[in-house]
Amino acid sequence: MKIFGTSGIRGGIVEKVTPNLALDLGRALGTFLEGKGTVGVGTDARTSNEMLKNAFISGIVSTGTDVVDINRAPMPTTASHSTMEIVSASVIITASHNPPSDNGFKFFRGGREFIRTEEVFLEGRVKDRNFRVAGWSSIGKVSTWDIRPSYFRRALDFVLERGEKADEMRVLVDTANGAACDYTPHLLRELGFRVTTVNSNPDGHFPGRLAEPSPSNLEDTMRMARDGDFAVTIAHDGDGDRIAVIDEDGRFIDQNRIIALFAKDEVERNGGGRVVVSIDTSSVIDEVVSAVGGSVVRVPLGSLQETFELPWRDDIIFASEPWKPIFVRFGRWMDGIVGAARISQMVAERGNGSCITLMKSIPEYPILRENVPCPDAIKPKFLAKVKELLVPEFSGIEQILEEDGIRIERNDGSYVLVRVSGTEPKARLYIGAKTQNTLDMIADTARIIMKQARDDLSQ
Amino acid sequence: MKIFGTSGIRGGIVEKVTPNLALDLGRALGTFLEGKGTVGVGTDARTSNEMLKNAFISGIVSTGTDVVDINRAPMPTTASHSTMEIVSASVIITASHNPPSDNGFKFFRGGREFIRTEEVFLEGRVKDRNFRVAGWSSIGKVSTWDIRPSYFRRALDFVLERGEKADEMRVLVDTANGAACDYTPHLLRELGFRVTTVNSNPDGHFPGRLAEPSPSNLEDTMRMARDGDFAVTIAHDGDGDRIAVIDEDGRFIDQNRIIALFAKDEVERNGGGRVVVSIDTSSVIDEVVSAVGGSVVRVPLGSLQETFELPWRDDIIFASEPWKPIFVRFGRWMDGIVGAARISQMVAERGNGSCITLMKSIPEYPILRENVPCPDAIKPKFLAKVKELLVPEFSGIEQILEEDGIRIERNDGSYVLVRVSGTEPKARLYIGAKTQNTLDMIADTARIIMKQARDDLSQ
Amino acid sequence: MKIFGTSGIRGGIVEKVTPNLALDLGRALGTFLEGKGTVGVGTDARTSNEMLKNAFISGIVSTGTDVVDINRAPMPTTASHSTMEIVSASVIITASHNPPSDNGFKFFRGGREFIRTEEVFLEGRVKDRNFRVAGWSSIGKVSTWDIRPSYFRRALDFVLERGEKADEMRVLVDTANGAACDYTPHLLRELGFRVTTVNSNPDGHFPGRLAEPSPSNLEDTMRMARDGDFAVTIAHDGDGDRIAVIDEDGRFIDQNRIIALFAKDEVERNGGGRVVVSIDTSSVIDEVVSAVGGSVVRVPLGSLQETFELPWRDDIIFASEPWKPIFVRFGRWMDGIVGAARISQMVAERGNGSCITLMKSIPEYPILRENVPCPDAIKPKFLAKVKELLVPEFSGIEQILEEDGIRIERNDGSYVLVRVSGTEPKARLYIGAKTQNTLDMIADTARIIMKQARDDLSQ
Amino acid sequence: MKIFGTSGIRGGIVEKVTPNLALDLGRALGTFLEGKGTVGVGTDARTSNEMLKNAFISGIVSTGTDVVDINRAPMPTTASHSTMEIVSASVIITASHNPPSDNGFKFFRGGREFIRTEEVFLEGRVKDRNFRVAGWSSIGKVSTWDIRPSYFRRALDFVLERGEKADEMRVLVDTANGAACDYTPHLLRELGFRVTTVNSNPDGHFPGRLAEPSPSNLEDTMRMARDGDFAVTIAHDGDGDRIAVIDEDGRFIDQNRIIALFAKDEVERNGGGRVVVSIDTSSVIDEVVSAVGGSVVRVPLGSLQETFELPWRDDIIFASEPWKPIFVRFGRWMDGIVGAARISQMVAERGNGSCITLMKSIPEYPILRENVPCPDAIKPKFLAKVKELLVPEFSGIEQILEEDGIRIERNDGSYVLVRVSGTEPKARLYIGAKTQNTLDMIADTARIIMKQARDDLSQ
Repeated sequence: MKIFGTSGIRGGIVEKVTPNLALDLGRALGTFLEGKGTVGVGTDARTSNEMLKNAFISGIVSTGTDVVDINRAPMPTTASHSTMEIVSASVIITASHNPPSDNGFKFFRGGREFIRTEEVFLEGRVKDRNFRVAGWSSIGKVSTWDIRPSYFRRALDFVLERGEKADEMRVLVDTANGAACDYTPHLLRELGFRVTTVNSNPDGHFPGRLAEPSPSNLEDTMRMARDGDFAVTIAHDGDGDRIAVIDEDGRFIDQNRIIALFAKDEVERNGGGRVVVSIDTSSVIDEVVSAVGGSVVRVPLGSLQETFELPWRDDIIFASEPWKPIFVRFGRWMDGIVGAARISQMVAERGNGSCITLMKSIPEYPILRENVPCPDAIKPKFLAKVKELLVPEFSGIEQILEEDGIRIERNDGSYVLVRVSGTEPKARLYIGAKTQNTLDMIADTARIIMKQARDDLSQ
Repeated sequence: MKIFGTSGIRGGIVEKVTPNLALDLGRALGTFLEGKGTVGVGTDARTSNEMLKNAFISGIVSTGTDVVDINRAPMPTTASHSTMEIVSASVIITASHNPPSDNGFKFFRGGREFIRTEEVFLEGRVKDRNFRVAGWSSIGKVSTWDIRPSYFRRALDFVLERGEKADEMRVLVDTANGAACDYTPHLLRELGFRVTTVNSNPDGHFPGRLAEPSPSNLEDTMRMARDGDFAVTIAHDGDGDRIAVIDEDGRFIDQNRIIALFAKDEVERNGGGRVVVSIDTSSVIDEVVSAVGGSVVRVPLGSLQETFELPWRDDIIFASEPWKPIFVRFGRWMDGIVGAARISQMVAERGNGSCITLMKSIPEYPILRENVPCPDAIKPKFLAKVKELLVPEFSGIEQILEEDGIRIERNDGSYVLVRVSGTEPKARLYIGAKTQNTLDMIADTARIIMKQARDDLSQ
Repeated sequence: MKIFGTSGIRGGIVEKVTPNLALDLGRALGTFLEGKGTVGVGTDARTSNEMLKNAFISGIVSTGTDVVDINRAPMPTTASHSTMEIVSASVIITASHNPPSDNGFKFFRGGREFIRTEEVFLEGRVKDRNFRVAGWSSIGKVSTWDIRPSYFRRALDFVLERGEKADEMRVLVDTANGAACDYTPHLLRELGFRVTTVNSNPDGHFPGRLAEPSPSNLEDTMRMARDGDFAVTIAHDGDGDRIAVIDEDGRFIDQNRIIALFAKDEVERNGGGRVVVSIDTSSVIDEVVSAVGGSVVRVPLGSLQETFELPWRDDIIFASEPWKPIFVRFGRWMDGIVGAARISQMVAERGNGSCITLMKSIPEYPILRENVPCPDAIKPKFLAKVKELLVPEFSGIEQILEEDGIRIERNDGSYVLVRVSGTEPKARLYIGAKTQNTLDMIADTARIIMKQARDDLSQ
Repeated sequence: MKIFGTSGIRGGIVEKVTPNLALDLGRALGTFLEGKGTVGVGTDARTSNEMLKNAFISGIVSTGTDVVDINRAPMPTTASHSTMEIVSASVIITASHNPPSDNGFKFFRGGREFIRTEEVFLEGRVKDRNFRVAGWSSIGKVSTWDIRPSYFRRALDFVLERGEKADEMRVLVDTANGAACDYTPHLLRELGFRVTTVNSNPDGHFPGRLAEPSPSNLEDTMRMARDGDFAVTIAHDGDGDRIAVIDEDGRFIDQNRIIALFAKDEVERNGGGRVVVSIDTSSVIDEVVSAVGGSVVRVPLGSLQETFELPWRDDIIFASEPWKPIFVRFGRWMDGIVGAARISQMVAERGNGSCITLMKSIPEYPILRENVPCPDAIKPKFLAKVKELLVPEFSGIEQILEEDGIRIERNDGSYVLVRVSGTEPKARLYIGAKTQNTLDMIADTARIIMKQARDDLSQ
């Protein structure tokens, strides 16, 4: 069984992310650190956190490495903790937006998520069980540390450098009964907003809604946003790296436009720079970023952190996957909390208290995302076949990206991306274009080609 | 300055409830306990709690009495703590539903609020500064104790004795960003309800609404109740002794009917018994309670706890002021949390998932509550004069109560109550009747009489 | 591998008492409790405690059972905790007097150690790995509780019922850098003694001496006792169930006399009653207990707790193994802390400030304890053979006990006990008599017989 | 009443250092910090600490300044905490070596004690009661922080830069039942020493001895040092800034020689530099420091911290009052804990495991310290008169210091210092010389002159 996925470790607590795995991961991490240093351990609000945290801590100290228990802390806060001087690594126990029956682990060093080589080391140790074992006199120690004040101070400093304190503008916040309950509402309040909260008592049963901040899970919240008197509404997932934005009419705003908004702002402030986004994002980002002198790089899903090890890493000033902005000037982690603060500030300052007004600065183009069947057996050859068949159908091709699926970009700003799922017998189709007409034509073509590729390979 | 009001101590933190008063109150309480025993100290979620708690604890231990710091805990939980074997008294630092700039203290022994004689002792010590001072070798000690589990176990036992677990019925809960945030939502969830929360991250700035769960403060919540899909909606004040109930149409339910609902249920279960309510409650309570074989006693506002020292105290099975039910079989404190659990259970079981249906079991009669001017100078003689003038106007008088205002009850179920305010130049008029017509006639008469009394006395 | 020994679980942390065993034990205990109730978890001061405690807690909550973390607490305090209303069981992580590289687990219910049938259940689950697994929504919770105040209050109540407060009599206390560091010195001080401590900062490295309070480990302390001005000196092991006593001349007092002292006192107060002691104790106990109207029962080592399940359990008023007194009127656990308090009180009250004077009330007879070789192969038949050969050698036999070795008691108060070791190729010989002459004669005979038995069986 | 003395604030808890003073000091400190920043608050082990700490914290947060509660922490650890980035000031509640009925406050900024101007500010606010009062929305917050790990890491780094790990050399440590109980023994153990502790369970009753580590209080410890097998014995006061050293023969070593030992070592390592000592220290320091290329500056008692504000402050590499070494390269605070580590290392490395051998490197000259009567009335003119009479009596005068008493230094290394007590009707006479003969002659002369001065002024 592969332990790490595209975003750390996740799975059901009975069948995969068990106390035994937690213990082994602790031992593996301590082995990685050679039984030295200190690891910060935080959690979201899930019911299985204490169970996993205790086993994980046991594993870490068994190698000689010390632990700082930072208790419940959002993912951004945990990541931020890993940049502190005495901290060798920080780990959050969370399954992010997964169902309550899941849990998982995410590892950070120096503010960024573990890269593949680091994950491979941990996975290797869990599999070969070649763990460091400290003798009785050098077992690690456990202390506790209230890191909330330092994260708040850093976040406030960053955000107030970019904008003013607000004057009682109303914001509705839905923190998914998760780790951000004690963070986003208070941070916004300290920034001068008048905050009403929904689903903001930490509860690992996720009683109010499922943790993923998708439109279908946010029905109640979107209705409250529409019926109430809020300039903007923010929703998180369970650990606070994700941000969803709903306008005052209760409409859910496309993630690509949120990324574009943040990216444009950071590039403008910096007078240029690179923006790194995942392959599944739309070309609206490129349009607004290039308009202010920046450039966009696309990388495979779950790979943003790898770019922080590349030679041009210092040029990156913003990065994002859908929902998950990385404000590089603040830190190299996904931060929905700072995202919430920034979007609220922008609504106040640039939107004059209207999210709708603010978002007018970012074009809205049609996009499409759908799944098509794709048997596991043909997956190894599927993308090459799709490329072979699809490329001749398009004129004006500017660029073809093949690191994670096949993405074809055209000179009219349209693009098509085909990826295969790692866990289901499906392929995923993403299309963006400036007009619905163009999008429909691309979609028709792509569906036909994908069916043909499937048929060809299934024979 | 009088320190205690009708409900413990309350006031602004800069002008009245200062660190110095907190220190003195701690010294007074330790003096009351003769420098022995242990005091539990809890708080609601106000910004000034740590300031006052620290000074208060200092004062207590300076007398030799020990302290258990129980941290943030609702009023019912703090009161419940005072019934534990090693606990001499428990105190919550809270200003209940007052504005965020206020704070206060409420004292409990053996589960009930301090009675007047106890308050008089504390007030006396604060004034004469005759405090016990422990020598260095007998200063009190401070420990901590997580009392949430024991309150939950007791509350669950009590509530599950009275009803079943629910099957995912949806409840909306608004805990006023106060002390009940970690209690009511979780208790309801453990009882099987599907809970959505609003204003339920603890925040002493009360960002979502003011702490008093009155219709004007609950506009957002009432709209959510109406537009959403909730069987019933519950709102608390800052410390969780108060409960307001909103039905699925978003209508705020009259407190008298909530009291009547609880009282009837407890009396029915017990096969009779006494219900004690404050003077300002309506006769609908008497109607439903007597129908199931119980009787109702009315006492001055802020005096329920005094009845627990009377000879017939063991006959009391339910007591209440508006908003604040005391489930005597559970404990002698006001408990909005258990109230929330019981009302939700009744909506599920008796209302078949409809609060409106449930409330049909309690008649809805017109009531009136209004203020009329009443200069401080005439107050000493005002009530006697009103009585003199008013009694002759009414036929069918059954009973006249004079302990707290003048209340005249008639044999058609109507009543009129006139009280004078302790803090403002006003008198308060309360009327209830079975028809609007009757009520209007009583109101006309009462207004005229009160004006005449005022005129007579002002000459 | 057998997990439980005669006194809970003990072993090296790398080879036996590992995080994995701790996790499994937690799961087994939660399974035993059917995923319900609450378990208190305490530790001594060892370096491996946090490692094991965290894994153990993870295992417990994974079954649905809750945990109260009581942190560092002596064995008696942990046992006492298990008698509290909401506590289903309490466990201390300790290896008692073993070396620092070891650790272990001891389980309590209702104040007494787990009996064999309970241990067999846990051992069975660890072996067949048939653990209860809670679903995500019913995983246990962890809270914390400072139990020191309640143990102190109970201990003070018990001890002050039996004696007065002292007047500054000096006592030297050596708590083995273990769990009793925060207990015995403070309890004695609250009882009015002037306490000087040695090796009383908690430190799992046991820097001052090894944890077993034997004469060879207590050389420094015995010298301090002799050279200083202390009425009596008390030494514990790592978890505080054991007590060793040193008089003002620095002489280590035989455990049998300490047991006799306590037993006599409790029997006298009670006006009779049964005393239960382990098979390896001397007849001086019988002598002093019968003189005050009590009777003595001998049971196998590690079995005192079994007697608390027998029909005559309510007759037991004191029980003890060497070093480990159980004051039954206080609780059914071994309590070196209360033992320290009682012996200090007796030195003050009956010894007039002299331990030597006090101990004159208990006769001092010669005893012998030695090991002789005994190959594992012959062990199964060795004791029967020794009995066959030894019994004819003695006149005046009053009683022969065969539950744990073979013990022959004679009417002159002498006795001989032969046991075989469970872990080494040895037999153990214990002899007591009223004169050295008698003891020497019994010893000569016993050594010859044991050699003969060995020779006969080895052929 | 003057609040600050030469070493912070100290006094009886009933008459001076009361909860009310603590509250006011907190308000004054927060006012000094303008209601901003964060204050660390630690305590020693006194019985009155919780009482004072709670009131003090209340006062601080009432101004808007935040608090980090660092719990029990020695003075050096608290001082070290004040150098951390987010910390504006740190305060320890301690009365150092005073009796248990006293307590007090010591304030630090950036690692050094508050200087006079800062103390004057605090004293002014307490007296004029002109405190900053935060509104309800800006009251300070309280968090907790386990600072032990960071102090340990810093101390270990510093000490291991200066010496090796030891190989089980035995050290006896007596931490006065005070704040260093959890520090010095563990630090030495981590440095490889085998540590036996006495009086090392924290207990504010100081049951083992009074907190001042003077020969008369250390009788037990000196006897243990003599009779036991310890290479060196270390004793602290209640808060760990003081260090007393006892050799393996149980002899108490003169403080001047300990200062000389440390000063010489630091100067040698640095290749020169200034050493600042208080006026009451002997010339042996000058002798050894100048021999390795350094120079010595003398300042009034209680004034070392003032020199860290002088232009030549960066030249200071070591500073000390008797008992209280400041290792400037480590930090600008008195640190008996690091002193204990360094002296132990030197005994191991330079003394080959013998304190006596080590101390041979520092000459031992006779010194004298005695009190003579000096009525308060004549104090204002006493020193001038003594100077007038005394100077003509001596030849070879090299220097006369007059900042704190009158100190005459001669070219044979002898000196005489006369000071008047601030609290008693006494003058103090200090003499040092290279031979007993010289010392006796100076003493005779000084006594005569002081008597004459007294007589002259009393007429």
